[in-house]
Amino acid sequence: MKNERLKKQIQFIVEVDKIKNILRQNYIIDNSRRENDAEHSWHLALMLMILGEYSINQHLDLFKVMKMVTIHDLVEIDAGDTFAFDKLNNIGKRDREKIAATRIFGLLPEDQRDEMIQLWHEFEFMETEEARFAASLDRLQPLIHNYKTKAAGWKNHIITKGDIIRRNQHTQESAPGLWNFIEEIIEEILEMGYIKK
Amino acid sequence: MKNERLKKQIQFIVEVDKIKNILRQNYIIDNSRRENDAEHSWHLALMLMILGEYSINQHLDLFKVMKMVTIHDLVEIDAGDTFAFDKLNNIGKRDREKIAATRIFGLLPEDQRDEMIQLWHEFEFMETEEARFAASLDRLQPLIHNYKTKAAGWKNHIITKGDIIRRNQHTQESAPGLWNFIEEIIEEILEMGYIKK
Repeated sequence: MKNERLKKQIQFIVEVDKIKNILRQNYIIDNSRRENDAEHSWHLALMLMILGEYSINQHLDLFKVMKMVTIHDLVEIDAGDTFAFDKLNNIGKRDREKIAATRIFGLLPEDQRDEMIQLWHEFEFMETEEARFAASLDRLQPLIHNYKTKAAGWKNHIITKGDIIRRNQHTQESAPGLWNFIEEIIEEILEMGYIKK
Repeated sequence: MKNERLKKQIQFIVEVDKIKNILRQNYIIDNSRRENDAEHSWHLALMLMILGEYSINQHLDLFKVMKMVTIHDLVEIDAGDTFAFDKLNNIGKRDREKIAATRIFGLLPEDQRDEMIQLWHEFEFMETEEARFAASLDRLQPLIHNYKTKAAGWKNHIITKGDIIRRNQHTQESAPGLWNFIEEIIEEILEMGYIKK
């Protein structure tokens, strides 16, 4: 291929196909198998289209949020999926993911590499209202999936109400209209015994 | 749930999870299994972020394209995946998909239902430059996958060079910079015997 820029872009597009094999703890809603990162990221993009109106900021850059959720898990191609409530595996996660971001986004032409690393960093450290809203969706999606799959994604772990609240609590500020719904789900899954007090 | 609007939105978000079980003819790039529609749609969104610059229209509404590729295959939850080169199964596809769109998008609040149906329709009939660019990505992605998987997605079919050109030819106008690349791929896969003259 003569076009060096396009060559790099295609190499990146081919490389990230691997995300389709990165399995999460969650199950898809028919409970037949675990979900992978590509499916999860797609679902967040779809959720953004439908739930964007719940952001506290009526001028949120929704396109930016959509880009964030599309690329937020690419680092897991190298760093693997780290279960949110697994304290041990979360040690060193940041370093593993930073090295992964350098390699994976490094396949792109420099300007796009920098743009992607910036987007990923902004999401990961919840630096802006866009990043906080993206994170709200990223926490809400597995909550819905566990609610619908009798907590299949949590079956090998002991999860408490406090864990779920801590994981989602920034939604109280970034999307108050979704927070009420999250509170309702938490009460229901507590009653059903999916999580502990 | 007290909020009727949010209730409908969540029902839709749960319903569309089914797209993760709609299998395409194509294989993922490691050739281990067939790809599903959620993974495919995610890949198109990612491609848009990287390849958007190749649109003939430098003022393309990229956010709109991203929304289109995210929802473009939802109708297949009811209508099933129709292989592009399967002439028999393509009979009646439009009608099947229209009924599907009415049911699936009909789960949403009316304003969002109308917005989604409009987006899907615009894509399906390539009504705008945004729709044509989205369609270019939708045709290019399986071409890359078949190129990388020794044409695994085409193994049960006889595909000709003419089929591939017809399927991609609008890219010549909507994204000339990508068209050159497509021509290169077509020559290579012809040489490798993946398609017939």
